[in-house]
Amino acid sequence: MTIQAGILGATGYAGVELARLLLRHPGVRLAAVGSVSFEGKKLCEVYPSLRELCELECVDADEVVTKSDVVFAALPHGLSQDTAAACVGAGKKFIDLGADFRLDDAAEYEKWYGCEYKHPALHGQAVYGLPELFREEIRGKSVVGNPGCYPTSVALGLAPALRAGLAEPQGIVIDAKSGVTGAGRKTTQGTHFPECNEAFSAYKAACHRHTPEIEQTLSKMAGERATVTFVPHLLPVNRGILSTIYARMKPGATLEAARAAYEEAYRGERFVRLLPPGAGVDIRHVKCSNYCDIQLYADEHTGLLIVTSAIDNMVKGAAGQAVQNMNLLFGLPEETGIDMIPPAF
Amino acid sequence: MTIQAGILGATGYAGVELARLLLRHPGVRLAAVGSVSFEGKKLCEVYPSLRELCELECVDADEVVTKSDVVFAALPHGLSQDTAAACVGAGKKFIDLGADFRLDDAAEYEKWYGCEYKHPALHGQAVYGLPELFREEIRGKSVVGNPGCYPTSVALGLAPALRAGLAEPQGIVIDAKSGVTGAGRKTTQGTHFPECNEAFSAYKAACHRHTPEIEQTLSKMAGERATVTFVPHLLPVNRGILSTIYARMKPGATLEAARAAYEEAYRGERFVRLLPPGAGVDIRHVKCSNYCDIQLYADEHTGLLIVTSAIDNMVKGAAGQAVQNMNLLFGLPEETGIDMIPPAF
Amino acid sequence: MTIQAGILGATGYAGVELARLLLRHPGVRLAAVGSVSFEGKKLCEVYPSLRELCELECVDADEVVTKSDVVFAALPHGLSQDTAAACVGAGKKFIDLGADFRLDDAAEYEKWYGCEYKHPALHGQAVYGLPELFREEIRGKSVVGNPGCYPTSVALGLAPALRAGLAEPQGIVIDAKSGVTGAGRKTTQGTHFPECNEAFSAYKAACHRHTPEIEQTLSKMAGERATVTFVPHLLPVNRGILSTIYARMKPGATLEAARAAYEEAYRGERFVRLLPPGAGVDIRHVKCSNYCDIQLYADEHTGLLIVTSAIDNMVKGAAGQAVQNMNLLFGLPEETGIDMIPPAF
Amino acid sequence: MTIQAGILGATGYAGVELARLLLRHPGVRLAAVGSVSFEGKKLCEVYPSLRELCELECVDADEVVTKSDVVFAALPHGLSQDTAAACVGAGKKFIDLGADFRLDDAAEYEKWYGCEYKHPALHGQAVYGLPELFREEIRGKSVVGNPGCYPTSVALGLAPALRAGLAEPQGIVIDAKSGVTGAGRKTTQGTHFPECNEAFSAYKAACHRHTPEIEQTLSKMAGERATVTFVPHLLPVNRGILSTIYARMKPGATLEAARAAYEEAYRGERFVRLLPPGAGVDIRHVKCSNYCDIQLYADEHTGLLIVTSAIDNMVKGAAGQAVQNMNLLFGLPEETGIDMIPPAF
Repeated sequence: MTIQAGILGATGYAGVELARLLLRHPGVRLAAVGSVSFEGKKLCEVYPSLRELCELECVDADEVVTKSDVVFAALPHGLSQDTAAACVGAGKKFIDLGADFRLDDAAEYEKWYGCEYKHPALHGQAVYGLPELFREEIRGKSVVGNPGCYPTSVALGLAPALRAGLAEPQGIVIDAKSGVTGAGRKTTQGTHFPECNEAFSAYKAACHRHTPEIEQTLSKMAGERATVTFVPHLLPVNRGILSTIYARMKPGATLEAARAAYEEAYRGERFVRLLPPGAGVDIRHVKCSNYCDIQLYADEHTGLLIVTSAIDNMVKGAAGQAVQNMNLLFGLPEETGIDMIPPAF
Repeated sequence: MTIQAGILGATGYAGVELARLLLRHPGVRLAAVGSVSFEGKKLCEVYPSLRELCELECVDADEVVTKSDVVFAALPHGLSQDTAAACVGAGKKFIDLGADFRLDDAAEYEKWYGCEYKHPALHGQAVYGLPELFREEIRGKSVVGNPGCYPTSVALGLAPALRAGLAEPQGIVIDAKSGVTGAGRKTTQGTHFPECNEAFSAYKAACHRHTPEIEQTLSKMAGERATVTFVPHLLPVNRGILSTIYARMKPGATLEAARAAYEEAYRGERFVRLLPPGAGVDIRHVKCSNYCDIQLYADEHTGLLIVTSAIDNMVKGAAGQAVQNMNLLFGLPEETGIDMIPPAF
Repeated sequence: MTIQAGILGATGYAGVELARLLLRHPGVRLAAVGSVSFEGKKLCEVYPSLRELCELECVDADEVVTKSDVVFAALPHGLSQDTAAACVGAGKKFIDLGADFRLDDAAEYEKWYGCEYKHPALHGQAVYGLPELFREEIRGKSVVGNPGCYPTSVALGLAPALRAGLAEPQGIVIDAKSGVTGAGRKTTQGTHFPECNEAFSAYKAACHRHTPEIEQTLSKMAGERATVTFVPHLLPVNRGILSTIYARMKPGATLEAARAAYEEAYRGERFVRLLPPGAGVDIRHVKCSNYCDIQLYADEHTGLLIVTSAIDNMVKGAAGQAVQNMNLLFGLPEETGIDMIPPAF
Repeated sequence: MTIQAGILGATGYAGVELARLLLRHPGVRLAAVGSVSFEGKKLCEVYPSLRELCELECVDADEVVTKSDVVFAALPHGLSQDTAAACVGAGKKFIDLGADFRLDDAAEYEKWYGCEYKHPALHGQAVYGLPELFREEIRGKSVVGNPGCYPTSVALGLAPALRAGLAEPQGIVIDAKSGVTGAGRKTTQGTHFPECNEAFSAYKAACHRHTPEIEQTLSKMAGERATVTFVPHLLPVNRGILSTIYARMKPGATLEAARAAYEEAYRGERFVRLLPPGAGVDIRHVKCSNYCDIQLYADEHTGLLIVTSAIDNMVKGAAGQAVQNMNLLFGLPEETGIDMIPPAF
């Protein structure tokens, strides 16, 4: 059986990356691509890298839903909910790459995104799609909230330490750096080449919308309320997120115990690589792949555990993880279609 | 049947790119990787992007040959010939990514590379592996000289115009620009990040070793002696070559006639994309893929045909084309294992 | 006497670079900055690099003219002419960084820019401000057409060869590459960081507006009609232009004769550096300076003279040369305020 | 009186940047440049950006000392001490851009650098040259330990908060990012363009040699022992350091109080810019200048004060600050020769 897949928001960066992956997925046919801005235009006219590889024309959302068994939505927040409801009503799967199905708490969603949960029951059925942490909950679901890019890197970077009770869940500092594709396709002065190249800055310090999503997952891992200070930075590269995470070690915790906990947690995980001691995590080593690379350090004189965690923001941080979730929903081997080897350069 | 493939010079940039492609090739098993500098070390220790993806340890050349049905050599010039002879003697295929089997004329080779052809008979059996131009000659051969990166972009960019007698084969100007991986893995002052970033320069103006290779192919296409002025430049990007080619149009030649010739020549070619009028060739659109993108212009007031031709220097300009040649040698569909879609960014 | 200087279009890239230079010019006071888009806003709010260094608020054109002895205009083409006339009427100097006073021939201007010369008499009084070639004509003038960035690099790169009758003025090929600041401050999809970084392409091949300006100057140098094929490319760096120029050598011309002609032509020129044989021109070596670096090569087997010429497009290609022209107009030493040393990295 | 200045280690990155500044300093004559690796070669042959701007040939250390009133040393650690002693003995000034005169405690120096203090008395006379914090101690001294690049950004970023008792001096987290010139001129695999471009990684996490220097200054500011966790990262840009600093606010401390303390501390400081609320610090805004830009944030839900602090690592982080110290030693206005305006791009 071939899965008929559709993409809403296919002309955005996450959307086109998803199209690229689905076009090579052995169990999928890319059935329809939707775009409001480019309706009637071919996807390969917007992205010439796709010439001769995808002749699909952008259509409206209804047509995407009609033609698809699974609908991926890469839309601005607030716009996915009605389509999700329609999909579920029609027995289809819905994977949201936006923020509409990530937060459990409607009040938090309203506070940070300024929108309401329109279909509370639907939200009750949705699952947070971070397979390495919630694999069993994902299987069999119909609506998946695909995690944000930063939250993916942080959750994978800290989960074993919190689960094992080795790190304090309060006062965690997350200093994250993202490539410019994270800011999307829309041009802005800050992403205009001469003002972004040879530049580096923090943005939305301690007020980025991924903060509640990060705290939600870390709290689940710790079994108690976690609090973080989260400061993202814009890195002058196309792809990649590196999160440097600082957490106080609990009394008695050691670097050795932490390494053991991570090895145990990620043994057999296809897409998480705990690096050997002495090796450094680099966004370059995971580029264009679905990997998350992790390294651990301890600062003994201050008692901090330091974790570096790198992903490709467009793959494990968006489109790749969405395909991983699709594979889970449809019972395919989890790595199907996303087993790309990162290029060496 | 699975092809057992080996790589000599696997820790160089072309070598590791080849490893990456072969590891995902459905008809191949990467049987052995050879390296003089890193013998005894795992390839994934040299290139951490390969962690958990390739556990092969670097071995010596003999072991690579023994274990392989086909040997790829990505070695400094002069070092491939004996191994090629050994492979042929043992009934194996040999694909040379270096310069030892590219030139028909031993004297030219000696003049430009300062080495001799050690096995003249072997050279007589070798074929220049540019499938789009010499497909039928390649099938059934045992030794392939895989074309240089610049020559690939130029030959594909000019062949139809020369074959159709639309452009003069003398006095062609080739202004080519290559990403830094073309300079290889070895560190130099000129490729040290702070001296290469935000920099741009020509090098080996009118004296680069790819000149005779370019003229050899263009002469074959034109059916008469072609001469070129070739000036390469170093571009501060990792991957990609863009060649801008200037040729005098023959009397009566027009842009329309040229477009028709290129359409005809490349109809059905899986890896050459002639862009529609108005679209521009960009190295970004072919990155990490085996495509060659081509566009044509005419400068009516000076009578020049202008061709822009873009490839990924590491794929169509090296490892990808080598796999394409292997597929031809073994009777596999030509795109097997190299049908990567270039990422949009 | 302190020169009161004003800038129209101060919030564009050429405008703000000019502001930076004038703020450190020992004989100048930056009296007023004009901007249509940012009127009422401080220049340092638009460009935070200027914080605490320039408290000027953007005002309208009239106020700039009133407060200034010399007005620099960095405006879209067509918009400078009336202000130039007003300045001349009021006994002020006018230096246009746009294209309105570069072309001698009104018909060429209309053909390439789609605008008319409104004040023909004024154009008769204007001078093309390339000091190294037209120094004596510039002194004493009131209106200067500051050369385009590409034309500056090309004219300095070819003038000595053409004047000395060593190169044919017909059929010259100019393959030029410019940093992204050349495209200006306005955001576009093509200069959005993820689509410009790690990218490279030609644009406006054989149809760029600098073509007639280039041919005009080269024709003057050659004493006969010069024709060029001009293909610019977008380089993923902030600053710099490198032009690679290919011209047929006249019978009897040699590389040695060419070097001698260039040495003679540029002896004593403060801002042109003819490199010693063996050294390569790099945009890095002229960054943030008013230098033009030049190197010569000959391709003996095709008979071409090859010239590489590098400038900083924002300095010698725009703001620096404008200041050089101002110095000439006001009788100051030509290097005043523009003797910056390019940083090594 | 013109100061005769000499540079030891002039062919390193800090050395050549210093040469560039001194060549334009109105009170200085660059009298001699020293280099072990390039003795006998002109500095402008090593750095072609200096062509026609500096004809000095590299000489040995003795000659540099003999010809100079002030000697700047940009040498590997351990090599400055004897020359410093010789200079002091001869009544000359010595400014060390290396680490030999930064730490008060000989044991710390030995622990982190593996070298001994050879002339304890000399160290007693040396001063830590961070003018904004220790201006009065610097005047009249003969030996200056010019601060490290990271420590400069951190000390300026935290001093007011610690002095005012607003932040806890223990458990400070410093996540710092530096451009590649910080790694110096020597080529390495990690700074080879294709492995550094489009890459990002942490290095020497919690074990970088600047840690004790940072803690020393912060302890002085706090009046008690300060402890930090310091993790530097390599940023794929040429210049610039951005330090993101996380400190616990003391009970009762507020963002407003912090802003007031910083405004008070840096009122009148020529080279520190506290940005207005809402504006973001960017390494681009201080490039090629001696500025340190600072912004403050508070994370109310975790009680952290967050400081972003940006400098040009080669200017305020090395050569510019060295000149600032020289100006202090010789009684010149502090900004002499280092009042460069950062370019907008």
